[in-house]
Amino acid sequence: MENFDFYNPVKILFGKGKIAELGKHIPKDAKILMTYGGGSIKKNGVYDQVMDALKDYNIIEFGGIEPNPHFETLMKAVEIVRNEDIDFLLPVGGGSVVDGTKFIAGAAYFEGDEWDILAKRAPISKAVDFGAVLTLAATGSEMNSGGVITKAVTKEKLAFGNPLLFPKFSVLDPETTYSLPMRQITNGIVDAYVHVMEQYLTYDVNSPVQDRFAEGLLLTLIEEGPKALAAETIDYENRANLMWAATMALNGLIGMGVKSDWATHMIGHELTAFHGIDHAVTLAIVLPGLLTQLKEQRGEKLLQYAERVWNITEGTDEERKVLAIQKTEEFFQSVGVATRLGDHNVGKDTIDTITKRFEGRGYVGMLPDVGVKDVAEILEARL
Amino acid sequence: MENFDFYNPVKILFGKGKIAELGKHIPKDAKILMTYGGGSIKKNGVYDQVMDALKDYNIIEFGGIEPNPHFETLMKAVEIVRNEDIDFLLPVGGGSVVDGTKFIAGAAYFEGDEWDILAKRAPISKAVDFGAVLTLAATGSEMNSGGVITKAVTKEKLAFGNPLLFPKFSVLDPETTYSLPMRQITNGIVDAYVHVMEQYLTYDVNSPVQDRFAEGLLLTLIEEGPKALAAETIDYENRANLMWAATMALNGLIGMGVKSDWATHMIGHELTAFHGIDHAVTLAIVLPGLLTQLKEQRGEKLLQYAERVWNITEGTDEERKVLAIQKTEEFFQSVGVATRLGDHNVGKDTIDTITKRFEGRGYVGMLPDVGVKDVAEILEARL
Repeated sequence: MENFDFYNPVKILFGKGKIAELGKHIPKDAKILMTYGGGSIKKNGVYDQVMDALKDYNIIEFGGIEPNPHFETLMKAVEIVRNEDIDFLLPVGGGSVVDGTKFIAGAAYFEGDEWDILAKRAPISKAVDFGAVLTLAATGSEMNSGGVITKAVTKEKLAFGNPLLFPKFSVLDPETTYSLPMRQITNGIVDAYVHVMEQYLTYDVNSPVQDRFAEGLLLTLIEEGPKALAAETIDYENRANLMWAATMALNGLIGMGVKSDWATHMIGHELTAFHGIDHAVTLAIVLPGLLTQLKEQRGEKLLQYAERVWNITEGTDEERKVLAIQKTEEFFQSVGVATRLGDHNVGKDTIDTITKRFEGRGYVGMLPDVGVKDVAEILEARL
Repeated sequence: MENFDFYNPVKILFGKGKIAELGKHIPKDAKILMTYGGGSIKKNGVYDQVMDALKDYNIIEFGGIEPNPHFETLMKAVEIVRNEDIDFLLPVGGGSVVDGTKFIAGAAYFEGDEWDILAKRAPISKAVDFGAVLTLAATGSEMNSGGVITKAVTKEKLAFGNPLLFPKFSVLDPETTYSLPMRQITNGIVDAYVHVMEQYLTYDVNSPVQDRFAEGLLLTLIEEGPKALAAETIDYENRANLMWAATMALNGLIGMGVKSDWATHMIGHELTAFHGIDHAVTLAIVLPGLLTQLKEQRGEKLLQYAERVWNITEGTDEERKVLAIQKTEEFFQSVGVATRLGDHNVGKDTIDTITKRFEGRGYVGMLPDVGVKDVAEILEARL
């Protein structure tokens, strides 16, 4: 196990009815900017629950944060925070709304070009306090201090993070996910699965606790994912387990002391930036290609994954590795995700464009085993 | 899964050499009371590492905190905190030193009889800040907000807890455990194992993430425990994995949304209070008796435990449950712990005394399936 620092002060309020407790966790004199997305919260009752819990508060609303939230949109909210003396942000939505609100929180007090927070990783020294009401299990943003923002005009999708950007609390009520289209549920499952894989399927550093936690999350997603699709009536426990698994998949814990990668995310971000493909779908496209490319280098962990997650115990090392990658892709397909570039009308020209972008950047993920030259090979295998 | 609130703001600084970073985490103008136990830290180099890291600080020392720390001893430290205007506590030691220091932190500002914090669960409203340097993997106190204190004069051993009593940070350097006697290592393994069992081996509430995390910790302890005993030279990775498993066993996470018990601890505490038996040893004595007593009520979880942790898949339900309990006891014995009351010269008279104490108290653990009348039966089966 490698040395590490772990810190995660997010208070989690988990379960049905928990939105009603919001008032216990926000200062009574706070002036709140409530942020949300396309407005589905006004149809499914979540908005009313929040307003009922906070009826004594001064609240301004900011809706319209899009999936893969745009810098341009968020800067309008930053102006409101500055002009209206907002001192608490309340994202109500999925990972995009929470990510976007983290950016608003960090940019509000930033002096200079706010895009530098992403493009130059410019440090922030102060942030607006915020707490989240999660309505979609997927990104884990509700219990971490990072996010991903897209500049629409240049099609750049970049990550940022800062310990000041942990939510003060996050409300996780599985019932808020009941009205979601199934595509968002299944995207969430794939997103959480790949978050785990980025931290788990790399190299053995003798970390049995982290490995087994990761495997436990993967097994839970494999069990609960198809149940969500098959259910004739929505099962609370199923949605609760998916929500908790997605949160635990990216709250830092399973990544402590191990080698994390994130190359799949970096490549996937470009597919979203250029073609608007759902984030999770890009991960399902890239991951099988990446694992195939790294079959030798990451063979030890792939064999462990094959046995412990997919119960593959027979065949040669090569056969077991190939079968584990195949099972992974089949799992993504089993929850309705199309895993080939061709399925999304993406061709060779996009691969060239993406390759050029990585050549300019000079790196892909956090490990040296995926180089810039590998990006084209990985994507070509996914055409 | 049941509704829950989770909050754990402890910063973990994990790995070799981490003591050197202490100064980054304590206010520069702090007046520190450094607490420790029998003084082994002055022989094994840990004291010197701490003093070197904090050479610019004003530090007063308070040694002599005993295993199962005494209220009477701790009150002497409380007086020092009050008289010397101490504003930061630094426990350097194992669970007893950390638990004891939590009590000092909470009692220092308490008005009234400080024993009421334990006996009457009197609330505290303010605590002295503290951060820990852990030197023994066992209790999990380094990443939670509770503790257990003994009043020597009345032989009462009681628990307390408060969110104000989370350490600000805990340094977990596995190398600090190198000089420990093997008995303390193995006690730590048993202690962590039973912490997991108290939160896991109860009733199924459809919590696959929590279950698999718990099983992952048990499997890790089963693998790493015997390695610690067998090692001719101390293996850093082995000690690191034991330390992280023990911390994760009782930092709240695996207990979220599930039914926890703690009856084994409650009964065990009495064996320590009356006979001074090591805490972990009392747990190893009680747990097999408790599981046997509850074989029917907790059958579903026992069968899951049998299969996933001990790979027991053949035989009748009854046979698999009995074998799983037997394997558990054999594991404790395999790391050198004597699991019968007779091994410790405890007889029927003690059982009567303990039973009377529970009759006076009116409850045992947190679940109704272990009643006061069960205590005698559980202990008689362990003579």
